[in-house]
Amino acid sequence: MSEPKPRPDPSGPTSRRSFLRTGLALGGAVGAGVGTGAFAGRAAAAAPEAKNLPPNVPEWSQSLGDGVVSRPYGRPSKFEADVIRRDVEWLTASRQSSVSFTPLHQLEGIITPNGLGFERHHGGIAEIDPAEHRLMIHGLVEKPLMLTLEDIKRFPRVNRIAFLECAANSGMEWKGAQLNGCQFTHGMIHCVMYTGVPLKRLLEEAGLKTNAKWLLPEGADAAAMTRSVPIEKALDDAIVAYAMNGEALYPEHGYPLRLVLPGWQGNMWVKWLRRIKVGDEPWHTREETSKYTALMPDGQARRFTWAMDAKSVITNPSPQAPIHGKGFTVLSGLAWSGRGAIKGVDVSLDGGRNWRAARLDGPVLDKALTRFYYEFDWNGEPLLLQSRARDETGYVQPTKAALRQHRGLNSIYHNNGIQTWHVLPSGEIENVEVA
Amino acid sequence: MSEPKPRPDPSGPTSRRSFLRTGLALGGAVGAGVGTGAFAGRAAAAAPEAKNLPPNVPEWSQSLGDGVVSRPYGRPSKFEADVIRRDVEWLTASRQSSVSFTPLHQLEGIITPNGLGFERHHGGIAEIDPAEHRLMIHGLVEKPLMLTLEDIKRFPRVNRIAFLECAANSGMEWKGAQLNGCQFTHGMIHCVMYTGVPLKRLLEEAGLKTNAKWLLPEGADAAAMTRSVPIEKALDDAIVAYAMNGEALYPEHGYPLRLVLPGWQGNMWVKWLRRIKVGDEPWHTREETSKYTALMPDGQARRFTWAMDAKSVITNPSPQAPIHGKGFTVLSGLAWSGRGAIKGVDVSLDGGRNWRAARLDGPVLDKALTRFYYEFDWNGEPLLLQSRARDETGYVQPTKAALRQHRGLNSIYHNNGIQTWHVLPSGEIENVEVA
Repeated sequence: MSEPKPRPDPSGPTSRRSFLRTGLALGGAVGAGVGTGAFAGRAAAAAPEAKNLPPNVPEWSQSLGDGVVSRPYGRPSKFEADVIRRDVEWLTASRQSSVSFTPLHQLEGIITPNGLGFERHHGGIAEIDPAEHRLMIHGLVEKPLMLTLEDIKRFPRVNRIAFLECAANSGMEWKGAQLNGCQFTHGMIHCVMYTGVPLKRLLEEAGLKTNAKWLLPEGADAAAMTRSVPIEKALDDAIVAYAMNGEALYPEHGYPLRLVLPGWQGNMWVKWLRRIKVGDEPWHTREETSKYTALMPDGQARRFTWAMDAKSVITNPSPQAPIHGKGFTVLSGLAWSGRGAIKGVDVSLDGGRNWRAARLDGPVLDKALTRFYYEFDWNGEPLLLQSRARDETGYVQPTKAALRQHRGLNSIYHNNGIQTWHVLPSGEIENVEVA
Repeated sequence: MSEPKPRPDPSGPTSRRSFLRTGLALGGAVGAGVGTGAFAGRAAAAAPEAKNLPPNVPEWSQSLGDGVVSRPYGRPSKFEADVIRRDVEWLTASRQSSVSFTPLHQLEGIITPNGLGFERHHGGIAEIDPAEHRLMIHGLVEKPLMLTLEDIKRFPRVNRIAFLECAANSGMEWKGAQLNGCQFTHGMIHCVMYTGVPLKRLLEEAGLKTNAKWLLPEGADAAAMTRSVPIEKALDDAIVAYAMNGEALYPEHGYPLRLVLPGWQGNMWVKWLRRIKVGDEPWHTREETSKYTALMPDGQARRFTWAMDAKSVITNPSPQAPIHGKGFTVLSGLAWSGRGAIKGVDVSLDGGRNWRAARLDGPVLDKALTRFYYEFDWNGEPLLLQSRARDETGYVQPTKAALRQHRGLNSIYHNNGIQTWHVLPSGEIENVEVA
């Protein structure tokens, strides 16, 4: 690898000057790369001479591969078998009321593949026959409805990319650095394109009575998940969705119907949606009283904490994705806000003493994951990596210390504090907290 | 179902007035819906009384389902088993040099799930070990490069949603209405978010010599696919991509590396990319001489027809997705242009005599699929459905007749003519041509 070099000017985007240094670093990396692999010897010899021949002919270039529709529905390469959702066995008593985490450290861009989107179930995965499924809308309405999937698909459709975050995401970290990897500290989130009918259209169809103020969506799973949703959100941007990333919802995500409440805590996005009751006051269900509330220092409980505050995490490098050698390094991460679009992300390499503006790349959308990058030349010194999100409301992601000072030590939900990764000279990375 | 009604004013978006008629139509549809399904009887009884109980308790609500990570990498519901890529057996002699088609009629939004993106192979699917794979850049460069995947991931990354269309998409239709379904007439296209390094960065790293004018990308598959790419495109928006929709490319899409040339014909997006030679003139390979050229009426051949012209197709209703009954109907489709963003889409219900503006919904991005809708109240009369795309350059999608007049009858590639679906009173739909 290349020799240690002074860190490039971090104030701006990668400059031609720093990029050329990148080149040198890669020159070294190429040497190292060619030093490994089956045909490295000949490759190393071939490249400098720039022969008009491939460096060698590997097996897969010598024989025909499988034909089309050998996999009518495709799947990843066998070499990507470790890119999966994972759970934490000690976290819950049963996998039927538990969570699995999105492998954020192994993903790029802002779209989460459906097969890798985190799961949170309270009664296991309901396997619903869509032909037998109905959505009932009743209560304070003029005309109760019993809708089939086909009925619902006759309403005008909308498409929206939105993140879905569990209110308990990063919850373990309230008590300090607990879990060693962003998959586990921040992986209760995903971002996809949903397609469905605006809930407003269905409620107009049923005809809301003048005293209609709250909704009670209910799931068809064994837990019959219920939450109280204020009518204002239902009439704003709520969607009854049947597709994500173009195809039908997967069973673990609520097939055939789920509620989508952009920017709000995932527990309210009722899966396997079978019923919406319209009422005039909240129902104070289990999921909004004994759960999904926060006991404050004064003994009072915060409740109805619906919107997810601005948050970010560095996905690479991170404990599950260490740095392999000095030189030019791509720092990458995700930022999001339940209150609007991300305005900017700042990155620190020294535990929050100095901040530099990250580069946002790809679509920057309202209430969606936003990808950020910060490229730098690592000289092998220890680093304390942090990211800090800012949203269009002016809100700035707080430190964990500031959150604890305000909320006390009894919280489980809504930890959007700044995360710190400690990079060791070896390139290995630890989950730590800085005073 | 509802009685036939006069068609709503088609000039604008769905009005409150027409939506209320929708309501009536759905009222009818609800009756029909409740008339089917296991618990329909009780459901029909329960709904009007608006009991605060679900209409019944199906099996999946009575027992716990599978737990988290029962599928560490998820897959669709067993009830979606018919949502797959399909091929046409008579089209090619071997499935190892053939095509499978995206099920456009079963998809929503603009993102294609990786497992459903169409395939076109010339030597089957190369199953490449990424640790053994290299990308060589040589020829008219100052410093030939031999890059590992790890090297490539040390370059700054970009994320971009782009459509990929085979130049032969709709090619069978040149000779008239041949294939009965948009999966087969238009399914050689998909749209995903790619992540990778701009090719410009890699060429800067190698250092282009002053006479560098063309590139020859080569695949590592048994066909060793090669195409000549002008340096202007390589330095503009070309990407060497390793991820689509957030995860590694699937093997059938070029794992671990493919070339991305936004807006240009798919044959040039070399998969399993192993080598890029830099030269001063095109190589006139098989894929740009005997193939992917067009014999014009005067005996001359059109070649280097890189950009895909503006095009659209109605995906629903369509031959594989008939209309189930009269009443409010959602017409949905996709539009795209290789020359920029879609400016608008017009829809005709009468074979092109009258046109109405469709509603675009979801992101409208440069060189990406764009979703359009036109909602109307179907009274059971026969229809001739057409869509016509317009892009930001002012280009308007032509009729097939106009294309044939200009290109003659020897063409296979670049058929972007207006497609016609004939809706029968039964709701069934045929692929037809109108004079």
